[in-house]
Amino acid sequence: MEIPADELNKFREMHREAKKYINLNPLQRGGVLSEAARNALDEWGDGYSVCDFCGGCLDQIKNPPVEEFVHKFLPQFLGTDVARVTNGAREGKFLIMHAIAKEGDYVILDQNAHYTSYVAAERAKLKIKYVKNSGSPEFKINPDDYAAVIEEVKKETGKPPALALLTYPDGNYGNVTDAQKTGKICNEYNVPFILNGAYSVGRMPVDAKKLNADFIVGSWHKSMASSGPVGILGAKAQYESMLFKKSEKYKIKEIELLGCTSRGLPIITLMASFPYVVERVKNYAQEVEKARFLSGKLESLGIIQMGEKPHNHDLMFFESQRLFDISQTHKSGRFFLYKELKKHGIVGIKPGLTKNFKLSTYLMSDEELKIVADAFEEIVRES
Amino acid sequence: MEIPADELNKFREMHREAKKYINLNPLQRGGVLSEAARNALDEWGDGYSVCDFCGGCLDQIKNPPVEEFVHKFLPQFLGTDVARVTNGAREGKFLIMHAIAKEGDYVILDQNAHYTSYVAAERAKLKIKYVKNSGSPEFKINPDDYAAVIEEVKKETGKPPALALLTYPDGNYGNVTDAQKTGKICNEYNVPFILNGAYSVGRMPVDAKKLNADFIVGSWHKSMASSGPVGILGAKAQYESMLFKKSEKYKIKEIELLGCTSRGLPIITLMASFPYVVERVKNYAQEVEKARFLSGKLESLGIIQMGEKPHNHDLMFFESQRLFDISQTHKSGRFFLYKELKKHGIVGIKPGLTKNFKLSTYLMSDEELKIVADAFEEIVRES
Repeated sequence: MEIPADELNKFREMHREAKKYINLNPLQRGGVLSEAARNALDEWGDGYSVCDFCGGCLDQIKNPPVEEFVHKFLPQFLGTDVARVTNGAREGKFLIMHAIAKEGDYVILDQNAHYTSYVAAERAKLKIKYVKNSGSPEFKINPDDYAAVIEEVKKETGKPPALALLTYPDGNYGNVTDAQKTGKICNEYNVPFILNGAYSVGRMPVDAKKLNADFIVGSWHKSMASSGPVGILGAKAQYESMLFKKSEKYKIKEIELLGCTSRGLPIITLMASFPYVVERVKNYAQEVEKARFLSGKLESLGIIQMGEKPHNHDLMFFESQRLFDISQTHKSGRFFLYKELKKHGIVGIKPGLTKNFKLSTYLMSDEELKIVADAFEEIVRES
Repeated sequence: MEIPADELNKFREMHREAKKYINLNPLQRGGVLSEAARNALDEWGDGYSVCDFCGGCLDQIKNPPVEEFVHKFLPQFLGTDVARVTNGAREGKFLIMHAIAKEGDYVILDQNAHYTSYVAAERAKLKIKYVKNSGSPEFKINPDDYAAVIEEVKKETGKPPALALLTYPDGNYGNVTDAQKTGKICNEYNVPFILNGAYSVGRMPVDAKKLNADFIVGSWHKSMASSGPVGILGAKAQYESMLFKKSEKYKIKEIELLGCTSRGLPIITLMASFPYVVERVKNYAQEVEKARFLSGKLESLGIIQMGEKPHNHDLMFFESQRLFDISQTHKSGRFFLYKELKKHGIVGIKPGLTKNFKLSTYLMSDEELKIVADAFEEIVRES
């Protein structure tokens, strides 16, 4: 059907208002491009730019140095034997479930798991059992509970679950569960253990081997200073032939990856950002300090941090009867917090939220942290 | 494991040599960014930039105008009832196969199908039957043969195949098979018909409804002036609930899309390029003229165009005993063609190929066309 040209003007005028603000959205703070990645955009922007010298496999391209990146540096960085670039952490989780489990098998998820872990399991036609969290206020996952749920599956089906997954940390509370212990328990039961590192790989040091993980997934656009969509999947060598089985007819193509995955700017930006990311994970203790600082400030205003305390991650969840009460009489109603923060040059908390919201302090400067703390103080005191 | 910073210098110095050359690679000619898309790179480069104002579903984001793009303009552009953005054409094909067919079902592919159609079927655990091409020199697909292969499947299994696919055009010969007729035959047998438009959608006018296609997939990085990886999937309304079934637990999340797909620059560049792409498909007759011009020139040098003649697409396959013979005595051996073309400022034919290769004339200027034609002439005459 003919589309009139003037109807398309909106696509000629897309601008990103949020760039002018301090952004509290945990989803976005770790994906801001490094200078090096930003500089690569123009040169590598075209469609299949990365394929100039491709022999048929993305992960074997030598110029740009994808092969060395994927097969040498990524396994080193993740503490795995093998690695591949995927279209995202969710695509990595589906890949593992689809390759390793059979339809109708059980997968164990922690109750704080991201929705994509659940949806990946649904897509792979698996059954799901949860390891429950401890409830309010900390919502912690107890590694020992994995043993109980594995036993439950064994009792029900006569065999252990096909897979177990831990969200490390989870995207709601930012709880950094003891993955090493969880992994050890899963290992003892011979249940392959997936670590979902979407909020850790690229932010904090993570070594899959030390954490007893059989698989690890990460998200480059979430935590590795890359343009989306792009993720990482690492695994122990023993799973390589199952995960990366080759096509019967096209001998060099990996079935679960549909041949190739990230073919463009996402893989370029992540390679360009990699030296920066390798360095920044070393400074994560400072990031935890920032989170604890803001947590303390907000708590002094009656805005209570849920999840682990003291906190060990930049992502935090808050609960505030105080802000909710203000919204009941404020002229902007439930949108007041969003609007008031915006007046202070701050965005990233969903419009309409007051009683429960999450935020991240990742990579904030001291000045930005102070602006955020002061803004909440002023909003609470003056409303 | 600690990675020494100086080992990472190669990621600080990635440059794209190929940008200085005329590029004959069919994979790359249609994915060169529009001016508008290039201008959007810096502003929208960060990880989850597109999610500034997301309510939970990529395809429902209003700012930038993803919702209107996906639900209004894309169906209009494709001639479908519904559409979604995927991570690529291959991901779209797998999605259709996984959602519509059951393990062990048959899918019919044309013999010229791209490897990703085969691999997607393998990943979905389907059985494959081919509609054979006519062999050398034209390698044509005859729509009537779909009826015969459907009958064959019915005879073998007692039921028609779950799906049939046509590559339109194929990526080897650039043959534009009569899709309308193929679709009509599949419709008559009630076999859902997939059109793989990776080399047509965004290059030439394509209307899925007119072509009797139940599904269509396209590739934005291949043919729509966008950064990869990003694709399009369109379908008739009757398949919507199967393709885009929602999660049991997360009611707004679509299972086969794992919630969201293209979350970053790929979707931004494709929206920014869309007004340009809508216009450029109208000029495809000129592009066919360019292809025919170069085909004629090369044939006069003994480099013979395979596939349909006269040709109807910018992608062409050539066979040349002459160039092969030269390579037998040339000091650069089988790399001579690559090296000689490079001297003329031309890349895009795989190093080492002489007897068989493909190329595209898509969007070449008259001057570039002449440079390419003259280069081949000089190489043949002087070797």
